[in-house]
Amino acid sequence: MNAYETMTPHQRQQEAQRLRARYEALRDMDLRLDMSRGKPGKEQLDLVSDMLTVLHDPADCLLDETDVRNYGQLSGLRAAKELFADLLGCKASECFVGGNASLQLMYDTIAKAYTHGLLHSPRPWSKEACVRFLCPSPGYDRHFKISQSFGMELITIPMLPTGPDMDLVEAYVKDPQVKGIWCVPKYSNPDGIIYDTATVARLAALRPAAPDFALMWDNAYCVHEFEGAFVPFADILSLCRAQGNADMVYEFASTSKITFPGGGISVLAASEDNQRYLQALMAIQIISYDKVNQLRHVRYLQDRDHVLALMARHAEILRPKFHCVLDLLEREIAPLGLAQWQKPKGGYFISVNTLPGLAKRTLELCAQAGVKMTPAGATFPYGKDPSDRNIRIAPSVPPVEQLSQAMEVFCVCLKLAALEALA
Amino acid sequence: MNAYETMTPHQRQQEAQRLRARYEALRDMDLRLDMSRGKPGKEQLDLVSDMLTVLHDPADCLLDETDVRNYGQLSGLRAAKELFADLLGCKASECFVGGNASLQLMYDTIAKAYTHGLLHSPRPWSKEACVRFLCPSPGYDRHFKISQSFGMELITIPMLPTGPDMDLVEAYVKDPQVKGIWCVPKYSNPDGIIYDTATVARLAALRPAAPDFALMWDNAYCVHEFEGAFVPFADILSLCRAQGNADMVYEFASTSKITFPGGGISVLAASEDNQRYLQALMAIQIISYDKVNQLRHVRYLQDRDHVLALMARHAEILRPKFHCVLDLLEREIAPLGLAQWQKPKGGYFISVNTLPGLAKRTLELCAQAGVKMTPAGATFPYGKDPSDRNIRIAPSVPPVEQLSQAMEVFCVCLKLAALEALA
Repeated sequence: MNAYETMTPHQRQQEAQRLRARYEALRDMDLRLDMSRGKPGKEQLDLVSDMLTVLHDPADCLLDETDVRNYGQLSGLRAAKELFADLLGCKASECFVGGNASLQLMYDTIAKAYTHGLLHSPRPWSKEACVRFLCPSPGYDRHFKISQSFGMELITIPMLPTGPDMDLVEAYVKDPQVKGIWCVPKYSNPDGIIYDTATVARLAALRPAAPDFALMWDNAYCVHEFEGAFVPFADILSLCRAQGNADMVYEFASTSKITFPGGGISVLAASEDNQRYLQALMAIQIISYDKVNQLRHVRYLQDRDHVLALMARHAEILRPKFHCVLDLLEREIAPLGLAQWQKPKGGYFISVNTLPGLAKRTLELCAQAGVKMTPAGATFPYGKDPSDRNIRIAPSVPPVEQLSQAMEVFCVCLKLAALEALA
Repeated sequence: MNAYETMTPHQRQQEAQRLRARYEALRDMDLRLDMSRGKPGKEQLDLVSDMLTVLHDPADCLLDETDVRNYGQLSGLRAAKELFADLLGCKASECFVGGNASLQLMYDTIAKAYTHGLLHSPRPWSKEACVRFLCPSPGYDRHFKISQSFGMELITIPMLPTGPDMDLVEAYVKDPQVKGIWCVPKYSNPDGIIYDTATVARLAALRPAAPDFALMWDNAYCVHEFEGAFVPFADILSLCRAQGNADMVYEFASTSKITFPGGGISVLAASEDNQRYLQALMAIQIISYDKVNQLRHVRYLQDRDHVLALMARHAEILRPKFHCVLDLLEREIAPLGLAQWQKPKGGYFISVNTLPGLAKRTLELCAQAGVKMTPAGATFPYGKDPSDRNIRIAPSVPPVEQLSQAMEVFCVCLKLAALEALA
């Protein structure tokens, strides 16, 4: 029973009046705060300004006799592959280096499954009567939208504190129409959960009925701790290979939250056989992604140690912002029992689960007071949260002082929504 | 009748001996020259080195209150759209700014036609029994490969000195299975032909049976004169709109041969209705293309006049290379009547039509002597030149002295091939 339920109707009315007055005062401040997307803030962007000029002379653009300014090298610069291999623990030969968006590499992998089929597809997915895809939820809305855009049937898999509910996943993959699963294995979007070793092992050892089942492994936050030491992770490509599933996994990562979100580089890591197959298709689509920018990143980021040192500096900027959000939730919401949340140590989100039925109304009130959050439901397939309770908070953009205002708005709105529900 | 046919067998034998000796001497020089692709040479890349540092400070990355380093702005920076609109004569609102490859925008347009359909498609092309595409030939191999990769039936349309044979095009588009045509309207690849006004008008006024017929307008060489003054061209979007075909045309261009081939920016220009439709699909695929690089280009290229001034400097580098090739052909081949060719004033190619049956053998001999050219047949659908006569020469990479060696090899090889054919 939450604190409001134990109140008398009169007490609740008084509390509502008090909150309404505070809400109106906050609304009149004419705030315009955006916490809807996992975007780095300005201070983080400024941190990597040397990126801009790391190549400043034609001679800087030569690498192993290759002039990166010119055409060629479909799969990317060898040095860029080595950088990503160093970060992910896979082989450079397993890397395809893309443009500024790993999302595009994910989309294109699915698109090619539809138009041409994957390496082990009996036929292109467009020729299948039905394609079903597993969506651990709450999850990343853009993943689900890719699947939805291609007309797949989205299957919700509950997220546990250890990762996706593997009993359910193992049951579902017996269906040959189930063609894949979306995973964010480290600091999952939005819960910030790190899949535990057993979950990762069970995913690598899946025995899907579909020969072209795709383990879509979006390692978006692989080096993105904001609290504590770097948490190592296993190379999913090796794990899958050891289980006879070498061609099942497609891993994605990018520098979007290491350098510039609007101008980074990305990677698709997959088995050498997958690379051969996919690159033959990609050769029709592009001559190569931007190699000048790849070289900028190689020169600027250097290697894993250097990247981790840079991430520690990002962490210093992000940590107070996450603390601010968590502190306010702890102080304002925890005593009332209106919601629960994870306390992540990395990634870009805090995932709040309110009492059932409060998410949409809370965010509606927030929006009216100038605080924009990810729409309620977005973290579930088809944008529909069956319990209307999950809210994704992205604290990275606003400075701490604005953040604490925004969180005050949020807490007031959640309380008002809870009181409205009881009225 | 060519000069060799008028010789006696003995004279031909003597000529072959002489050429064979010269060929062997050239082969022994161990040349390694690549004339296979329309790539700018190093001198051209160095011309635009200021691109590298045009953004050197965080403050440089702000544009109209937008921080280009961060996420957002799917369709590209307003200023980048204005730059392309200035070059192409269309409206900024008709531009979608892409990454370093217009090829990718072309591929993705076709891919989306297959997976989702175009704006006026009754159904996705993947659900059509048969899709046919018109391929003016000789043409650009990468266009044809996109169509081929999606399993289309490729229909060869002969190129006339005025552009594609429009009588044929108008006849073919009565077939509802004919869904589009590939065009390079200015300095066509490889012939270097500028479509004449009547051809462009007839293309804009087509009455295709397919409601989703796509006029794929690859304006790759829109400002790429190497000889003489800039040749203005009509805005194809306006022309189509005036004919009631506003949504029929998809125009593409890029800075690949203005700044860096490996790190430029590209554009897809199409009606505002097409933009709305396509951008809704693209929003699933990408958050935006690289806006940092878009801003680099905006700051460096400025406007149309500034671009044309830069292109004049490219022209100074390219002109002697084209002259070298044309002079050698004129001196060595013209008197013998073994081939014919256009004399383009822009673009990146010289298209040589040998006597029938000589192209493949000529290029085989060239390759053995270390001179790599675009494979024979590449300029035709399915890589098959029915007359085995078209050879695409790309003179832009080698310095003039190497080019004259390469062309000597080429001329000797063509003569040997002609003599072999008569033997």
